[in-house]
Amino acid sequence: MTVLDRLIRDLARLPGLGKKSAARIAYHLLAADQAFCDNLADEVAQLKSRIRPCTVCHNYCEAEICPVCADPSRDQGLICVVEQSQDIFTMEATGEYKGLYHVLRGVLSPLDSVGPEQLTIAELIERAGKPGVREVIIATNPTLEGDTTGLYITKLLSGASCRVSRLALGLPVGGDLEYTDKLTLARSFRNRTSLS
Amino acid sequence: MTVLDRLIRDLARLPGLGKKSAARIAYHLLAADQAFCDNLADEVAQLKSRIRPCTVCHNYCEAEICPVCADPSRDQGLICVVEQSQDIFTMEATGEYKGLYHVLRGVLSPLDSVGPEQLTIAELIERAGKPGVREVIIATNPTLEGDTTGLYITKLLSGASCRVSRLALGLPVGGDLEYTDKLTLARSFRNRTSLS
Repeated sequence: MTVLDRLIRDLARLPGLGKKSAARIAYHLLAADQAFCDNLADEVAQLKSRIRPCTVCHNYCEAEICPVCADPSRDQGLICVVEQSQDIFTMEATGEYKGLYHVLRGVLSPLDSVGPEQLTIAELIERAGKPGVREVIIATNPTLEGDTTGLYITKLLSGASCRVSRLALGLPVGGDLEYTDKLTLARSFRNRTSLS
Repeated sequence: MTVLDRLIRDLARLPGLGKKSAARIAYHLLAADQAFCDNLADEVAQLKSRIRPCTVCHNYCEAEICPVCADPSRDQGLICVVEQSQDIFTMEATGEYKGLYHVLRGVLSPLDSVGPEQLTIAELIERAGKPGVREVIIATNPTLEGDTTGLYITKLLSGASCRVSRLALGLPVGGDLEYTDKLTLARSFRNRTSLS
């Protein structure tokens, strides 16, 4: 097996890449600058040793504390709870949210033997109990596991002084009623907002 | 910029990957084995120095001569002419063709100042003139440049003893007449095959 074959095989193991797209990338790299290839190789090799979870919110970062937690201009009274670090990436892209985050590192899933101890739920409860925290926003995925995890956290926080909320469920903006699934449509009826 | 940000930026420069898919791959690598990351990094870094064109057919390989050219069981009388090395990858996947290849390394394109000298056309003509070569199969892309390059090669080979053919143009298998473009449909009328 040549290094080209091995590269195509390994690239095809990455999420979202099949054999054809892996081959396309490999041939692109063959034609690219050596400097670009070297940079990419260094980044892949160093990634795991240089990136670690933020000690406050468990977001992936290079320092002890991630840039969001270290930024004093962020609203310290809001904690948005997400499943994974990459959800923060998606949320930051909207520019809508100016509070802090908390990464659970997964969702409760008894079938995969993921219980509360495997997640960062205890740390979240501790953070939420600190003075100044006004609201915990549950932003887990709208799936069975995500909802269950959200409800579990809500229950644990029932005695705390902060509010607990959840991201709105409903029709996606620009979506089409015809192609909306029944559950989403039912939710958007139930959670309909008043216009008058 | 953290190494994670830089990796996402560099991955997003690869063909077929956007910012979101690049992020997905980067976070996947963060959760993957260090050994897998190291292998991938080595492959990317070594690719350009270890892979070089076959001295016979210009296919990318690790040795002096590529596995196809080195395989005595392949039909030495057939030469399939392709634009790029990755086309061989696609063709070998069909298992249909058992002859040799010749990689042009591009197509004639005066606008991009690609003339016959920039391609491996002279080497092809020399190979086609050797005894034992029965047929040259033009398998350039069915585009203006691909067709022009094919016609140019056909003209150069008009004095040679070998046949020159071209891959059939027509409806794609499993395709739909309704969604077939006019040019393809016109071609498949012109090249219709007899059933009786």
